[in-house]
Amino acid sequence: MRIILDAMGSDNHPDPEVQAAVEAARLFGDEIILVGKEEVLRPKLAALNAENLPVRIVHAPEVLEMTDKPARSARRKAQNSMAVGMDLLKAGEGDAFVTAGNTGGAMANALFRLGRIRGVKRPALATRFPTRKGYCVVLDIGANAECKPEYLLQFGVMGSVYAEEVLGVKQPRVGLLSNGEEAGKGNDLVKATYPLLEASGLNFIGNVEGKELFGGDVDVVVTDGFTGNVLLKASEAVTKLIVDTLKAELMASPRTKLGALLAKPAFDALKGLLDPSEIGAAPLLGIDGLVFVGHGRSDARALVSAIRAARQAVENDLLGKLGTAIAERLATQADKE
Amino acid sequence: MRIILDAMGSDNHPDPEVQAAVEAARLFGDEIILVGKEEVLRPKLAALNAENLPVRIVHAPEVLEMTDKPARSARRKAQNSMAVGMDLLKAGEGDAFVTAGNTGGAMANALFRLGRIRGVKRPALATRFPTRKGYCVVLDIGANAECKPEYLLQFGVMGSVYAEEVLGVKQPRVGLLSNGEEAGKGNDLVKATYPLLEASGLNFIGNVEGKELFGGDVDVVVTDGFTGNVLLKASEAVTKLIVDTLKAELMASPRTKLGALLAKPAFDALKGLLDPSEIGAAPLLGIDGLVFVGHGRSDARALVSAIRAARQAVENDLLGKLGTAIAERLATQADKE
Repeated sequence: MRIILDAMGSDNHPDPEVQAAVEAARLFGDEIILVGKEEVLRPKLAALNAENLPVRIVHAPEVLEMTDKPARSARRKAQNSMAVGMDLLKAGEGDAFVTAGNTGGAMANALFRLGRIRGVKRPALATRFPTRKGYCVVLDIGANAECKPEYLLQFGVMGSVYAEEVLGVKQPRVGLLSNGEEAGKGNDLVKATYPLLEASGLNFIGNVEGKELFGGDVDVVVTDGFTGNVLLKASEAVTKLIVDTLKAELMASPRTKLGALLAKPAFDALKGLLDPSEIGAAPLLGIDGLVFVGHGRSDARALVSAIRAARQAVENDLLGKLGTAIAERLATQADKE
Repeated sequence: MRIILDAMGSDNHPDPEVQAAVEAARLFGDEIILVGKEEVLRPKLAALNAENLPVRIVHAPEVLEMTDKPARSARRKAQNSMAVGMDLLKAGEGDAFVTAGNTGGAMANALFRLGRIRGVKRPALATRFPTRKGYCVVLDIGANAECKPEYLLQFGVMGSVYAEEVLGVKQPRVGLLSNGEEAGKGNDLVKATYPLLEASGLNFIGNVEGKELFGGDVDVVVTDGFTGNVLLKASEAVTKLIVDTLKAELMASPRTKLGALLAKPAFDALKGLLDPSEIGAAPLLGIDGLVFVGHGRSDARALVSAIRAARQAVENDLLGKLGTAIAERLATQADKE
């Protein structure tokens, strides 16, 4: 397998990327193609004694900055590391592309260079949320701030395939994020989407709220990219607030400090639950190529997780299965019309 | 001061309500008017030795059930406890109305019986979220699933007045909940609301995310009732997931159990931060009367907090000040046109 890694994506690039490339090559035995400024990457790679590992550098002279306009970054002759990396994917020189760069840039470049799976109206960014019982796939978490009911229906289809093929969930339960569990609750978009999901043939369980999502009672949660993004960021911020407050309180007295020391195994277990670097990266479902977008704050460990997620998608032929599922859905719809 | 308390609102009514009425009367010295089935309430009140306290019962023969249609519950001759209680408020027999009953029912009854403050397009449900530095007012958290930019502008005005008058925040910082901090981020509603808030004369700080909200970097967060409700419920669910997981992990071994015992003061401090019963109840801002809606799961302690919130609103003449602020805003707008 060959994974293409954007070496200039994360906030602290390229150190986490170079380190992750070496670790992933060692761990998985895959070829890792690092895309970025060769003159910067070469000495960093050499310093890690990676001569015998299948890590290769492909030069990209430019770096996509946070301030760049996504659409401009994707122009025909763009030489930024995302554009060059996705061109490699398109040319068949790698099986998946992983970046910790900006989501808008990844989306624009992916749409321009790789295009959509036939029949897909809008690609969606899907991530896993930790739950009481494992993980829940939520999409869209930010690729499309404004959505139509047909997009959400497709998100349900793509999320189901992802949960089944990558997370190994049989007959994934699909829920529609709403402001109440009862059918009929929701804004106009949710109300119009509900009957589409109900008639979709998916294992649709109706409207869901945070309770079901984090309780582990649903496997795929469908929402528009605005609400999904608010949900994701609020969840992260609440977690941070609780963890930081608890840390400060535990350090407040010798007694609680001792308690914290003894209770350390419990806190460590909690850390595993909440650590975003366990999640790795979110796939851009619906793009005609496997593109995974990680958090800008990703460290080497998070990037190795991202590469692991990409590998699983390749191994399970996620792309082929998404194409088949979408094609089937379109055929069913055409039959009805 | 006289507070009208819906005795049949909470999931476990009327025990928490009767207990809260007695406690609040004792604590604040206010008259508490309990509205509900007299034959049920009378013996329960007698059992609490409240003869010398200013707790009065007003009979309401019906109870608004969760399955009742909100609009029907508000019909002219409705005899449910919410309708009767709000009629008392309208008639000037109390200064504020508090209920832990269903939000839709409270909204419908309030609109029908009390009406809106002159100039208000849509009342909004406002709640306080705990933050790193205190509290943040978020509105709307569920009264209006579908909103227009003008509504959100008014939510900003009403939220500011609430933060200033009830929470004592000078020049409250108002933020617009979005999927990115940069101006220009957002769905269509957010993009159309941004310039209105910018020109509003409020202390508008731009788009905000969960980070700013829970970090305590904003005092009032404006959003539509769908997104606000998703935000609220997700925050509650994440908190519950973390607390439950931590509890289970702490009980997993004798060592961590001992640690938990020693660290108890830290956990207690955390509890204060997260306890919804500290928050009490959310005001329906924009209704021409002080109506506070508490959580259905409220216990007596939460209801006492709700009564405390209502008292503060009465003491600070929240209603008068909202009316003035809205009138000023409308006059400014008329001048511009």
